Amino acid sequence: MDALLYFAPIAGICALLFAFYLIRRITAMDAGNARMQEIAAAIHAGAMAFLGRQYKTLVIFILIIVVIISVVGLLTTGADSLKPATALAFAIGAACSILAGNIGMRIATKANVRTANAAYQSGLNKALTCAFSGGAVMGMSVVGLGLLGLGIVVLFSNDSSIINGFSFGASSVALFGRVGGGIYTKAADVGADLVGKVEAGIPEDDPRNPATIADNVGDNVGDVAGMGSDLFESYVGSVIAAIALGASLQIPNGVIAPMLIAAVGILASIIGTFFVNVKEGGNPQKSLNRGQIISTVLAIIGILIVCLTVLDEGYVVGDKSYTALGVFASACAGLLVGFVIGNVTEYYTSADYSPVKRIAKSCETGTATNIISGVATGMLSTAIPIILVAIGILIAYACAGLYGIAMAAVGMLATTGMVVAVDAYGPISDNAGGIAEMSELPHEVREITDKLDSVGNTTAAIGKGFAIGSAALTALALFTAYTQAVGISDINILDPVVVVGLFIGGMLPFLFCAMTMNSVGRAAQSMIEEVRRQFREVTGLLEGKAKPDYARCVDISCQAALREMVPPSVMAVVVPLFIGLCPGLGPECLGGVLCGTLVTGFLLAIFLANSGGAWDNAKKYIEEGHHGGKGSEPHAAAVNGDTVGDPFKDTSGPSLNILIKLMTIIALVFAPLF
Amino acid sequence: MDALLYFAPIAGICALLFAFYLIRRITAMDAGNARMQEIAAAIHAGAMAFLGRQYKTLVIFILIIVVIISVVGLLTTGADSLKPATALAFAIGAACSILAGNIGMRIATKANVRTANAAYQSGLNKALTCAFSGGAVMGMSVVGLGLLGLGIVVLFSNDSSIINGFSFGASSVALFGRVGGGIYTKAADVGADLVGKVEAGIPEDDPRNPATIADNVGDNVGDVAGMGSDLFESYVGSVIAAIALGASLQIPNGVIAPMLIAAVGILASIIGTFFVNVKEGGNPQKSLNRGQIISTVLAIIGILIVCLTVLDEGYVVGDKSYTALGVFASACAGLLVGFVIGNVTEYYTSADYSPVKRIAKSCETGTATNIISGVATGMLSTAIPIILVAIGILIAYACAGLYGIAMAAVGMLATTGMVVAVDAYGPISDNAGGIAEMSELPHEVREITDKLDSVGNTTAAIGKGFAIGSAALTALALFTAYTQAVGISDINILDPVVVVGLFIGGMLPFLFCAMTMNSVGRAAQSMIEEVRRQFREVTGLLEGKAKPDYARCVDISCQAALREMVPPSVMAVVVPLFIGLCPGLGPECLGGVLCGTLVTGFLLAIFLANSGGAWDNAKKYIEEGHHGGKGSEPHAAAVNGDTVGDPFKDTSGPSLNILIKLMTIIALVFAPLF
Repeated sequence: MDALLYFAPIAGICALLFAFYLIRRITAMDAGNARMQEIAAAIHAGAMAFLGRQYKTLVIFILIIVVIISVVGLLTTGADSLKPATALAFAIGAACSILAGNIGMRIATKANVRTANAAYQSGLNKALTCAFSGGAVMGMSVVGLGLLGLGIVVLFSNDSSIINGFSFGASSVALFGRVGGGIYTKAADVGADLVGKVEAGIPEDDPRNPATIADNVGDNVGDVAGMGSDLFESYVGSVIAAIALGASLQIPNGVIAPMLIAAVGILASIIGTFFVNVKEGGNPQKSLNRGQIISTVLAIIGILIVCLTVLDEGYVVGDKSYTALGVFASACAGLLVGFVIGNVTEYYTSADYSPVKRIAKSCETGTATNIISGVATGMLSTAIPIILVAIGILIAYACAGLYGIAMAAVGMLATTGMVVAVDAYGPISDNAGGIAEMSELPHEVREITDKLDSVGNTTAAIGKGFAIGSAALTALALFTAYTQAVGISDINILDPVVVVGLFIGGMLPFLFCAMTMNSVGRAAQSMIEEVRRQFREVTGLLEGKAKPDYARCVDISCQAALREMVPPSVMAVVVPLFIGLCPGLGPECLGGVLCGTLVTGFLLAIFLANSGGAWDNAKKYIEEGHHGGKGSEPHAAAVNGDTVGDPFKDTSGPSLNILIKLMTIIALVFAPLF
Repeated sequence: MDALLYFAPIAGICALLFAFYLIRRITAMDAGNARMQEIAAAIHAGAMAFLGRQYKTLVIFILIIVVIISVVGLLTTGADSLKPATALAFAIGAACSILAGNIGMRIATKANVRTANAAYQSGLNKALTCAFSGGAVMGMSVVGLGLLGLGIVVLFSNDSSIINGFSFGASSVALFGRVGGGIYTKAADVGADLVGKVEAGIPEDDPRNPATIADNVGDNVGDVAGMGSDLFESYVGSVIAAIALGASLQIPNGVIAPMLIAAVGILASIIGTFFVNVKEGGNPQKSLNRGQIISTVLAIIGILIVCLTVLDEGYVVGDKSYTALGVFASACAGLLVGFVIGNVTEYYTSADYSPVKRIAKSCETGTATNIISGVATGMLSTAIPIILVAIGILIAYACAGLYGIAMAAVGMLATTGMVVAVDAYGPISDNAGGIAEMSELPHEVREITDKLDSVGNTTAAIGKGFAIGSAALTALALFTAYTQAVGISDINILDPVVVVGLFIGGMLPFLFCAMTMNSVGRAAQSMIEEVRRQFREVTGLLEGKAKPDYARCVDISCQAALREMVPPSVMAVVVPLFIGLCPGLGPECLGGVLCGTLVTGFLLAIFLANSGGAWDNAKKYIEEGHHGGKGSEPHAAAVNGDTVGDPFKDTSGPSLNILIKLMTIIALVFAPLF
């Protein structure tokens, strides 16, 4: 059966080949006139500058961790010890995630201008195809490099404690992508808006604003690289958790099955992308939905085939026996929960439904009622996702035991390629609109890009919900693997040490959010000062006679973000190690901490993402002419809500996905020490 | 040793006699001129009208529960079954809490005008004494009726499952006091402000505003009756949890000890009140602190004596033995944690320290940054209280086992009489200021009442922190008693049913907050419409020629509050019963739910209370002339923050204290059914 292990890396290579084909297609397209190319080049250069600076810090971080793991691994010996090879797996995992993010960003910042030009020269379908292809490159890079890298590691070693290192590497990159990236994108956004729109009185995306390129870079940093690294982490994390459980529970082919499911998911995603196209005047949303539904259906069929062929023997855990169909049901439960959570997110954050309409109405009585209404909506929106995940867990466990919970996560993430493609399509369209604006293309072009962009907002909301749900389920699967790794079969809530763990763990997401929110404020301050300086010192800038120094804004914002991400990151890394190693606390207490962080992290992430998203769309709804429209008092209230929501939905909320996974993976990797 | 059981009701009677003495002293004071008496009479009548209407609903609620418990008790038989006598204990508990609230409110609304008049006629010390005596009546009623009622129940039955009924009764009243009262007070506040200040342009506390009496009634409803019923619940809940654990762990004198500690705590509180007085021009804060410190020191000495005399044998649980000094250490740990949490709350919400100053500064860049800064501060402020409670739990458990955790809660609440006295002093001073304003007393009078009021804000912050901390520790003690009652010694987080419980339980506080926040909005709407109607229909009202219909505003706001509290209350009551009785979920899952609710409820309560308090004081800080002062742009931003914070700190936050206790007590009372 070991020949089956080659399927995973082969599927990964298929994804990469497909990505390569898409890249060829995108780069062959016309990049528009000189002005457009100039702006696009600035965004591209900014994005690359951001990545370059990030890599400098990241490489140091990775080297330190490699040394720590290697040294600790050499000092501890025995069957269950930490191994130097884990450090290698860690480095490979980090490298794969970095490479995926780099390819994705590189192409996204080429696809944006070509999307604008396609909208200008050819119309809706060509523009959609270009933007979606750009997103699909990111999606295919994520799943391709994820499964190729992991497949190679698994081919060389079937030792779970080594394989876990790969997941830790992915987590580390995601930390930089989501936390650092999240701070960067909002610092740039706030800086650009506050000095540009409010102080200097120039419109959004105006080329005279020195921060405007940084702002456009930020969209890519947050929604392409950040989201990509987050889902990369969930993707490999879920597969690795299933591998670890499959091995420790001694399930026949339990290690191969999750990799094969990931492999068929890749093929399903590739096929799905071919169904994304739209007639002139048609609805891009429908075509994206079509692509996703086809991928999902194909993935379900593929999962069924995998289960029936490699898990046909079934397995026994304790006194319970499970069948292949049970595992299939678990994976499908995960897949469906992910799908529905995404749509619930859309319900709470789209202006098509009553929650956002109610928030928009509350703007009539001012900012305060808008804020209260948004907070209440965000809190309310936690109920259904939690209940869905709870039902998913119960079904998965009933059908296939603990292994079923991990397989639910694998099932949920099977179509990650498609999910990332649809998600990364958003910022590309958004960028295309910005480029159209800055290069003064005709109004109709902006109309097409706006149409694509508004669909992008919906897909972004769905993607966010999916990312949170998958992070929670992956963390739970990793948590289960952790308890197997430390060999504890009982974490008793009635033990006060565990309760204390739950309390402390529950508090960490609040602390983490507070830290990241304050970070955005401070990083934005650095940006504001730089923009003010340029307006003051660069003569002729506001008259459009001189060019601003875009690169410097990108650089300053990037530096500030990297500086600000240190304290929350250190907390996420150090706390699990401290709790696990501290005498009197130890692995049971750590179990409580991880569980507490998982619960409140998941809840806060949904709350923050959805209230932020709802405020954003309530503002847009008012701008469409409701409740007084642009420039009215309610609009001013809505703008305040939107600004409050920015760090909620783009920094603190998504960063929590990383917190809950990273803490668990650290516990898992360092489990031999506890 | 049974003779010792009489100490508790005797101490309760002492407290009530002392309250009676204070009442005589207060009512003997001069109630001021006719105008003042007229206004005070309106507030008094409004408060009584609120209570009257609340009682109507409450009596029906109590009767329904009495019938349910009795019927279920008659249907189930056996040693562990639910008993009809539990229904009687429930009714007694409810009656005691209602009576305490009624006495407290009745006297608070007499003390307010006498405080104003004392400030007018005699000066600071007399005013402070009057306001504090009014608060002390509430404090003594709470602990007196709490311990007298509980003492009588215990004298008649030593069956834990019957005694638990008393706690459930107290919880039910607290539900109405905190949730209903919380919605009422903010609906009245928002209604009064929005139509009065914003629409009609008349100042705060202006007698022409029909909602102004309702607003002043609201201060009493929220901070006197609401806080009183909350701490009444914690007070009896902690003692009952210790009794239940003392009985089930068969600790010699384990049932008597917590009641004796409560008794010495009452005596310590009575003595402490005699030290609250101030010289002319002195600092009222210092005198209140002096009273509290003396009570605390006396309580510690009393607890030591109780432990050394009745627990001198020590006890053995499992293979561990504990001593009297261990229990003493546990109780002291609780007492100190309560004290420090209160002060941490003050740090985060007082304008004397950097967090509020930073929030005030953030108002310079507008409302949005103010909101973000306040949210971040509130989230940050969860860290220290959680860590303190965690340390307290670990110390208490190490020193005295599970019984120690309950005794930590008893210790924390020993000086409840003093805590409530200091807390209820706040709204009386606030009311006195309002009466001075409305009856146009000289400016110097307002200066004295403002001085008292500003101290009241600090004590309110400390009281809120204390209430949250004590609710959490009481709920944990009750939770431990619940697990003993259902006979489970292991609730394993690795069991997916428990994890699902943690997820669902963790979500409930979010849902509960969302519901109560929306409730305030809707109830305020009813109030706004009534005030607008009166301004429109009562001719000569705005010119001061006609009198508004104050009573109708009180009534409408009260009706709305009682209507709005139904859905969240039903949720709090039904969910534990449903989870406990649902096949496939059951008592272990319910354990997870209770624990999840406890963790996120505690966290959210701190977050909401502290961000709300911080915004409030940031606004006051700006009004003192910082960052542009009253009427400036930063002030407008600060006002928005304060309005957002109102339902946070006065409705949703405090209501969570009830949620976490009530759900646990329901689980405990109905444990025989699971």
